[in-house]
Amino acid sequence: MGGVPRRLAELTRPESLRLLGGAPFGRIVYTIRALPAIVPVRHLVDNGMVVVRTHVGADCVGAVVAFQADDIDTVAESGWSVTVTGVARRVVDAEETERYEAALEPFVDMPNVEVIRIYPEIVAGYELVPVQ
Amino acid sequence: MGGVPRRLAELTRPESLRLLGGAPFGRIVYTIRALPAIVPVRHLVDNGMVVVRTHVGADCVGAVVAFQADDIDTVAESGWSVTVTGVARRVVDAEETERYEAALEPFVDMPNVEVIRIYPEIVAGYELVPVQ
Repeated sequence: MGGVPRRLAELTRPESLRLLGGAPFGRIVYTIRALPAIVPVRHLVDNGMVVVRTHVGADCVGAVVAFQADDIDTVAESGWSVTVTGVARRVVDAEETERYEAALEPFVDMPNVEVIRIYPEIVAGYELVPVQ
Repeated sequence: MGGVPRRLAELTRPESLRLLGGAPFGRIVYTIRALPAIVPVRHLVDNGMVVVRTHVGADCVGAVVAFQADDIDTVAESGWSVTVTGVARRVVDAEETERYEAALEPFVDMPNVEVIRIYPEIVAGYELVPVQ
């Protein structure tokens, strides 16, 4: 704290998706009865789309949701945050489902865990950089 | 991955607020033109309320927002996530503002950074624990 002032620098879409893809987990942000809900989930980025395995699919599928990840060092005051926004769809193709299930272990062991894909219509990424 | 299965255990409100208060930063979740937006911010918990200094006050004040923090170890598959939901209000009292400004350094140096307080009407916290 109290170091060099920081500003937010916008990241490009490819850079944002690259950072998001490298994060160990992220957070799916959706709505339950008009109230925001946020759940940490493992994810991967495949072909520009975010794929998660989660038990909150019933509240997400067909809705516009956000997926966010960040990596912030509060001491160095550096880092980034990326949010993608788009419609969540259930992955139904058997081969794809199998591939994603092999690659993604859900955090929780629940019978209703599904594979959900988010089509990033909006990608917003920024980085904390020193003010010049 | 692939260790002992995990389930989500609900945390009490005091325990949730204690964990939230100890987190180095959190994320304010709000809405811009009906789309979710998520911004990492430093915060503190004071008298059961979440206080942040942020440049997104104009989009938050008077609205129901969420504030979330987590601490998750993806290797050990342990950790917690806490989300509070409530109306965001601008802190206007001069003495309070001064106290919060002294305690909270915003991540970014912008002229429109304000002190915002969230009254947690809903507190939802859970912990990843081994399935017994």
